[in-house]
Amino acid sequence: MLMGGPAMTLILGIDPGSRITGFGVVRDTGRGCEYVASGCIRTGNGELAERLQIVYRGVREVIQSYQPIMLGIEQVFMARNADSALKLGQARGAAIVAAAEAGLAVSEYTATQVKQAIVGTGAADKQQVQMMVMHLLKLTQKPQIDASDALAIALCHAHMRQSLIPHGLAGAKRRGGRLRL
Amino acid sequence: MLMGGPAMTLILGIDPGSRITGFGVVRDTGRGCEYVASGCIRTGNGELAERLQIVYRGVREVIQSYQPIMLGIEQVFMARNADSALKLGQARGAAIVAAAEAGLAVSEYTATQVKQAIVGTGAADKQQVQMMVMHLLKLTQKPQIDASDALAIALCHAHMRQSLIPHGLAGAKRRGGRLRL
Repeated sequence: MLMGGPAMTLILGIDPGSRITGFGVVRDTGRGCEYVASGCIRTGNGELAERLQIVYRGVREVIQSYQPIMLGIEQVFMARNADSALKLGQARGAAIVAAAEAGLAVSEYTATQVKQAIVGTGAADKQQVQMMVMHLLKLTQKPQIDASDALAIALCHAHMRQSLIPHGLAGAKRRGGRLRL
Repeated sequence: MLMGGPAMTLILGIDPGSRITGFGVVRDTGRGCEYVASGCIRTGNGELAERLQIVYRGVREVIQSYQPIMLGIEQVFMARNADSALKLGQARGAAIVAAAEAGLAVSEYTATQVKQAIVGTGAADKQQVQMMVMHLLKLTQKPQIDASDALAIALCHAHMRQSLIPHGLAGAKRRGGRLRL
């Protein structure tokens, strides 16, 4: 086995938002994923620049603390409206820049890809995803929903890269199946 | 006169975009503004994280080169649609974080405030703003439109702070008048 190969890779998942940015870190052992950490970065009620700096520094701090080498983040296709899209975009920009500046490889996944990977169907609801995240990571307590979503994205990324590694097919996408324990 | 007071303050204006981010630096002498620099940061066709990093590093480089202490940026009220708002938001997030991390005070101005400050009417069109930017800064060549918009925001910020200083009215807004030469 190569050093720095698929085994024991730390993966960060981020679920950015203008008020709360969820984060989750999982350890991909090559035979499944283990829980490392999760939580929320709360941006408070300050000025825009201050709030974005809280997201940026929060993500940077999580990376410094746990040393993940990859970031999974949800791809946004259909934002509710232009105003919320702008706010979400600003938080995403701050979070992604923090990860990119720390040298993490950034991968985007659609909500459908995340649900497919975790529950086995793209039509799963948030509660199903949360239950499966708890099951897959052997959590005894329900994580806050933003943290749970972030863990789901990290698990999705682990799944996607595991499904690529055996075949060495960079860029290929596995559509069926779900993350194994 | 105090050191670091209103005189000879360098002000950065930024006009972020998903493809091109314009920047402009002006020197506020206390008796008007002088042109220092302007240009465009082009994000190219790479991955999202790479493009946002180009905005972040570009803004950081401009700040390191010219040492402005304040940033003026346009406040977005009505984005065209959710998709473009998300992309604009991401670029704004990257640009604002770069400025905040460099310690700049960030102020937002509406398009109407910028036009009011530069042309004297909030109903001015882009060409009028560009012509007035050239006139106010004694430019002999027309700057690229994104750079010109960024210079306009920097001039607007200079105008707003000058109009506040004599009265010491933090938070007050001057609605009439335009930037003096």
